[in-house]
Amino acid sequence: MSGLLTPGSHRAARLADDRAVLTALLRVETAWARVLAQAGAVPPEQAEAVERTAAVLKVDLNALAAATEAAGNPVVPLLAVLREACGDAAPAVHRGLTSQDVMDSALMLIGRASVARVRADLVTAGDDLAARARLHRDDVTVARTLSQWAVPTTFGLRCAQWLTGIGEAVTRLDTLVYPVQYGGAGGTRALGTEITSRADQSALAETFAALLGLSPAGIGWHTRRAAVTGIGDALTRVTDALGVVANGTVLLGRPEIGEVREGRAPGRGGSSTMPHKQNPVLGILIRSAALQAPALAHQLHAAAAGAVDERPDGSWHAEWPVFTRLCELTAVAASQAADLVPGLVVDVDRMRERAHAAGGDLLSERGPGSAEPGSYLGEASLLVDAAVTAWQAVRDRRR
Amino acid sequence: MSGLLTPGSHRAARLADDRAVLTALLRVETAWARVLAQAGAVPPEQAEAVERTAAVLKVDLNALAAATEAAGNPVVPLLAVLREACGDAAPAVHRGLTSQDVMDSALMLIGRASVARVRADLVTAGDDLAARARLHRDDVTVARTLSQWAVPTTFGLRCAQWLTGIGEAVTRLDTLVYPVQYGGAGGTRALGTEITSRADQSALAETFAALLGLSPAGIGWHTRRAAVTGIGDALTRVTDALGVVANGTVLLGRPEIGEVREGRAPGRGGSSTMPHKQNPVLGILIRSAALQAPALAHQLHAAAAGAVDERPDGSWHAEWPVFTRLCELTAVAASQAADLVPGLVVDVDRMRERAHAAGGDLLSERGPGSAEPGSYLGEASLLVDAAVTAWQAVRDRRR
Amino acid sequence: MSGLLTPGSHRAARLADDRAVLTALLRVETAWARVLAQAGAVPPEQAEAVERTAAVLKVDLNALAAATEAAGNPVVPLLAVLREACGDAAPAVHRGLTSQDVMDSALMLIGRASVARVRADLVTAGDDLAARARLHRDDVTVARTLSQWAVPTTFGLRCAQWLTGIGEAVTRLDTLVYPVQYGGAGGTRALGTEITSRADQSALAETFAALLGLSPAGIGWHTRRAAVTGIGDALTRVTDALGVVANGTVLLGRPEIGEVREGRAPGRGGSSTMPHKQNPVLGILIRSAALQAPALAHQLHAAAAGAVDERPDGSWHAEWPVFTRLCELTAVAASQAADLVPGLVVDVDRMRERAHAAGGDLLSERGPGSAEPGSYLGEASLLVDAAVTAWQAVRDRRR
Amino acid sequence: MSGLLTPGSHRAARLADDRAVLTALLRVETAWARVLAQAGAVPPEQAEAVERTAAVLKVDLNALAAATEAAGNPVVPLLAVLREACGDAAPAVHRGLTSQDVMDSALMLIGRASVARVRADLVTAGDDLAARARLHRDDVTVARTLSQWAVPTTFGLRCAQWLTGIGEAVTRLDTLVYPVQYGGAGGTRALGTEITSRADQSALAETFAALLGLSPAGIGWHTRRAAVTGIGDALTRVTDALGVVANGTVLLGRPEIGEVREGRAPGRGGSSTMPHKQNPVLGILIRSAALQAPALAHQLHAAAAGAVDERPDGSWHAEWPVFTRLCELTAVAASQAADLVPGLVVDVDRMRERAHAAGGDLLSERGPGSAEPGSYLGEASLLVDAAVTAWQAVRDRRR
Repeated sequence: MSGLLTPGSHRAARLADDRAVLTALLRVETAWARVLAQAGAVPPEQAEAVERTAAVLKVDLNALAAATEAAGNPVVPLLAVLREACGDAAPAVHRGLTSQDVMDSALMLIGRASVARVRADLVTAGDDLAARARLHRDDVTVARTLSQWAVPTTFGLRCAQWLTGIGEAVTRLDTLVYPVQYGGAGGTRALGTEITSRADQSALAETFAALLGLSPAGIGWHTRRAAVTGIGDALTRVTDALGVVANGTVLLGRPEIGEVREGRAPGRGGSSTMPHKQNPVLGILIRSAALQAPALAHQLHAAAAGAVDERPDGSWHAEWPVFTRLCELTAVAASQAADLVPGLVVDVDRMRERAHAAGGDLLSERGPGSAEPGSYLGEASLLVDAAVTAWQAVRDRRR
Repeated sequence: MSGLLTPGSHRAARLADDRAVLTALLRVETAWARVLAQAGAVPPEQAEAVERTAAVLKVDLNALAAATEAAGNPVVPLLAVLREACGDAAPAVHRGLTSQDVMDSALMLIGRASVARVRADLVTAGDDLAARARLHRDDVTVARTLSQWAVPTTFGLRCAQWLTGIGEAVTRLDTLVYPVQYGGAGGTRALGTEITSRADQSALAETFAALLGLSPAGIGWHTRRAAVTGIGDALTRVTDALGVVANGTVLLGRPEIGEVREGRAPGRGGSSTMPHKQNPVLGILIRSAALQAPALAHQLHAAAAGAVDERPDGSWHAEWPVFTRLCELTAVAASQAADLVPGLVVDVDRMRERAHAAGGDLLSERGPGSAEPGSYLGEASLLVDAAVTAWQAVRDRRR
Repeated sequence: MSGLLTPGSHRAARLADDRAVLTALLRVETAWARVLAQAGAVPPEQAEAVERTAAVLKVDLNALAAATEAAGNPVVPLLAVLREACGDAAPAVHRGLTSQDVMDSALMLIGRASVARVRADLVTAGDDLAARARLHRDDVTVARTLSQWAVPTTFGLRCAQWLTGIGEAVTRLDTLVYPVQYGGAGGTRALGTEITSRADQSALAETFAALLGLSPAGIGWHTRRAAVTGIGDALTRVTDALGVVANGTVLLGRPEIGEVREGRAPGRGGSSTMPHKQNPVLGILIRSAALQAPALAHQLHAAAAGAVDERPDGSWHAEWPVFTRLCELTAVAASQAADLVPGLVVDVDRMRERAHAAGGDLLSERGPGSAEPGSYLGEASLLVDAAVTAWQAVRDRRR
Repeated sequence: MSGLLTPGSHRAARLADDRAVLTALLRVETAWARVLAQAGAVPPEQAEAVERTAAVLKVDLNALAAATEAAGNPVVPLLAVLREACGDAAPAVHRGLTSQDVMDSALMLIGRASVARVRADLVTAGDDLAARARLHRDDVTVARTLSQWAVPTTFGLRCAQWLTGIGEAVTRLDTLVYPVQYGGAGGTRALGTEITSRADQSALAETFAALLGLSPAGIGWHTRRAAVTGIGDALTRVTDALGVVANGTVLLGRPEIGEVREGRAPGRGGSSTMPHKQNPVLGILIRSAALQAPALAHQLHAAAAGAVDERPDGSWHAEWPVFTRLCELTAVAASQAADLVPGLVVDVDRMRERAHAAGGDLLSERGPGSAEPGSYLGEASLLVDAAVTAWQAVRDRRR
């Protein structure tokens, strides 16, 4: 996927695109072959052969994609390719699984990798905001409510707000689990039970999960999609938080306000026709992501709510492109934020001058008394300190 | 609100409607007056007078509603009514707060009450499903995938799936927090700091929260809406889970399938023209709720992502009707589910006959061997046991 | 419905609330009794009795609402009330219809009335914008792209853009049709055919439609919801256009920009704590509506896409509260816009001064030459003229 | 884009993917060079050189995609490539346009091509349904409402309903317009006016449009997105209509109902593990599309409602991937429907037997009398005839 219409998507290359999907599907099939070998259901050599074969398997992605329609998902045609390549080891491939076991586990691999990437970028952005919050702890600026000047605040407190939003997003990400999927054709694990001579299937599922770095799942979740919607909701919390940062930086960077601007980078922010333009491209693109993410997360819920039977007849399929798109979108936005935030150029003089010029109005709430904005800041600095401390705990949380 | 177009909404009367909003707003203002009194900022008699006045305040809801537009929210006109009624105690009202502090805290009260109601109904439905899962632990039925018969399963396992979905929803509800809001006009708590002689505002916020049964909030969250979106996401997880149950019962209740049907109640399910009709009304209405909830939760995220400044210029306002509607919708659906599930009439004979009739196909995965569906159930019964055990832990979790 | 959380909803009182729904349902039942009388299926006196009874029928909305759940819709319990009140004329009530015939026709009545109200308010706003476009045809201001100053433009051209958006919305509204619904229990009109002695049912449907001021429908549309989604899409086009106007006026009214501000009205825009505040309440509320409408229109499509059988098992029910909410939301926003736009206070001096101050940059595209912004306006004035002319045709279109 | 997670997307190859975007962007730039040449602003040879160069331009899509972030859109980096390749003719490239002029016009080209493809496939599906409606005009089956048996109907009438839905979708598509975009940097066409010696820019825009097969646009629509949202709404009407067909065929194809099934094609509908399975893959994938489309159309509206200034700071960017995804999704679904519908295998015997078996209940509305379902069909056959006639007019409409 090139990404002409998703600027910045190169930042998420190989994270949630078709190549990543293929890799994840093969990882899942490979891990399962090893599970079967450990359970004595197939010879260890076969499992090893599957692993070796999968590692070097040449797959024509376009051909595979075209073949997905007949079965309705990519697992079936991929199995045909894989089994052929495995030759005598083919019987070790996929036995006891259903295609949804493979798809769901693969999507969890992609989700987990995406969240890890997102978290790292949020920490970069958050650390910078924490430093800025401290740096600007006492730098007076106007608070704006309902678009109008309200009372004095500090730029440090605004940074602390943005920081806390990012911290909340990280906290939510850290609660996510990525369960392996193992239910077999109808959720009973019947074939697996038979071919492993009635071995404890939950133990097998644990091994399966451990090989993939996923969480063990008890009962299959073919029709309960909270693992998927939970990731979607959490990623949307990320874009919500980043959107607020970007809304703020783009607004404060308007020439009439001019309190903050995006850092310059060679070639960034130029116009096709106006040489003087310096557009806040990163902020704009993050805003664009924040506009897109909620509808994607929502589609995951709509799909989840539509599940029926032991495998849904359409709503499951609606999840895939939406989930991977949301992973990519968020990863790109977080990466852009990790560039945007440290690059911000802040004009505290302009903030202070504006606050002083507006002085009387800013203190109208207080009633008669000093019109010095810096004298009416309440607990702004304490709130900054608390936010920075809270951030430290969030970022260093042992997960 | 009568609710002609929201069948069942009487089940949620006074939970999230205008009367509930008014009550919550007054509770918040009253609690704050007590906070001020405890901090020595106003005489205790004034706070008591505010409380007494609010308790009996007559408010014309329609007039108040009409007055909300001028200020953009209901707090400002309500304050005018309340202050006038308080007479000499008026100075103890609202000092140090901003209207968003009151609105946000009130919405948290409504959210918490709604979640409590929802949880109780989920426990009712879940307990019944747990009993059914055990009862039908070995009752064979066909598993259906992609709308077609797949392999044998048990009705107990299907109930266990529905149960686990409800358990996941309860688990998510139990993680929610309902923070009080206290930031003052610009998030600095400047006025509060002054009128309480620089008392520790966080301690005041803790008292404020405790009086309301909310969580203490550190830094204000006027522009960080994770508390709101988190409740929305969690409620949608509820309707997702209930939607799956309702999809299943409505489908299995189609006359051609006839494996499950809604229990009858006097007058329920009748047609305006066809005397024989017995429509699965509760299932249909729950399905309808599951279709509506995701877009509501999504709107909360879209609003959250649009926040800017120290109080958003429109996206905050977009939250209110959506949040309360989602609370009501979910509470109604959960209540309906607490009726639907225990009332289900299950025809295990028909399930078994169908499974036997389909026998050969159901076991095609297995290859040659017995065509007795009951011989190919894998770990279905163990999965049922595990799901029931897990449910017990969820329902009894100490919150 | 009082509307504490939907500021301005008193503007749409009786348009799409429960009282309006009740009135519309009774209008439909009454019209149908007359149709039956004209077809000779019931005595004219009975139809007249139905009409008289319905005109004065006392209905306890809360009781009726509570009774909707049993049947899943309000028609069934309303029929019980109506039939009892009609006494001997009861046989003239509803015969040949199904409850969805009544609901759908009633919703079309509400849709049509809402659109008429919206259109009138759009014309008010549009006429004012047309006058402003002409007035400010040559008033130079800065064009902003991607939040930064770009080239010179005129405030007249900006008004012409807003005007054209409103014109497009009106144009779309004018294409809407509001079909009557008449299909009977299963879409075949079987009972109607029998009781009218096989009269031409399409002719009956035409009479039915004419009595209600709706469009005649051919084949019933119980499961084809384009009439509903079409209204939803068109109303969203309205809020899109109004949202752009409000985005612009709120932004230009920020104190740092100060080029436009909302007109003052007694009590409007005040703060609960800061006496100096003058919040752009109408703009903010319109922005809030524009944020909410797309998800509502989307829900109508999701419901439409979920239809199945001859009457959907849940998706139909999901339409009702969403459709009426969207009608109300749009009617309120349009009414607010009809106040907002004529009240705008425009500061052309500030616009001109800013344009001159920014002069060099604004003309960077042009290359060397005059730095006078007014010399680089291209066809701005011609575009204004064209937009105003186009508007005249739209507003006066004979519908 | 390969499309592992979007089964069937090979059907829309080159329609809305990055290669299609590139082609469209170059077509727009080429056409504009010709416009400039016709206006005498550049030598004809230069325009020809631009056209020749663009026709053979080698573009590394991945590199171009990576370069889009710096400018925020693909036009700026593409211009760099194109200008370099054009050598001396570079001055004829893009002068007087802004990047949004190019992007918007290119997206209209893609939209128009997608709609044309969709329409053709809808005609294929519709023609087949028209034939089936006539064929099964008198084939009795049960009508189902709220999931339960209601009254008798005919399968022909059900086909006529599906057909009418498709007809409504085609009708809406036929109202779409695809305007060219020409506003220049700030919407005034200032640079164009200068370099063409003040030629009538509207005449130039007409030429521009004609060269591209688009509609002439008057005033630019950089911040009025009705052209985009209109296409989105219309495409969603398509997926709504197709979703209803697919819901019906998948449901009627459940083994317990067995009245309709998808035609078989080699390799289609197979399972990864169960040899007997014959999954209704096309229906399922169309259902999946119908679940996804509304949220995409909704995102276009949300973006439209967020426009501000003379070019939006984020909401414009949010449109691109959503618009092209919706084009692709709908084109794939329509193509799948053009296969699904003609392939349907209908079992009228089973329909009739069920209707007879249910006989008494189906006629409960009628009261005492014949229990022969075929005697209670009202105007079913007339409605079929009318629907088929209406379809003929729609399909042959001169556009």
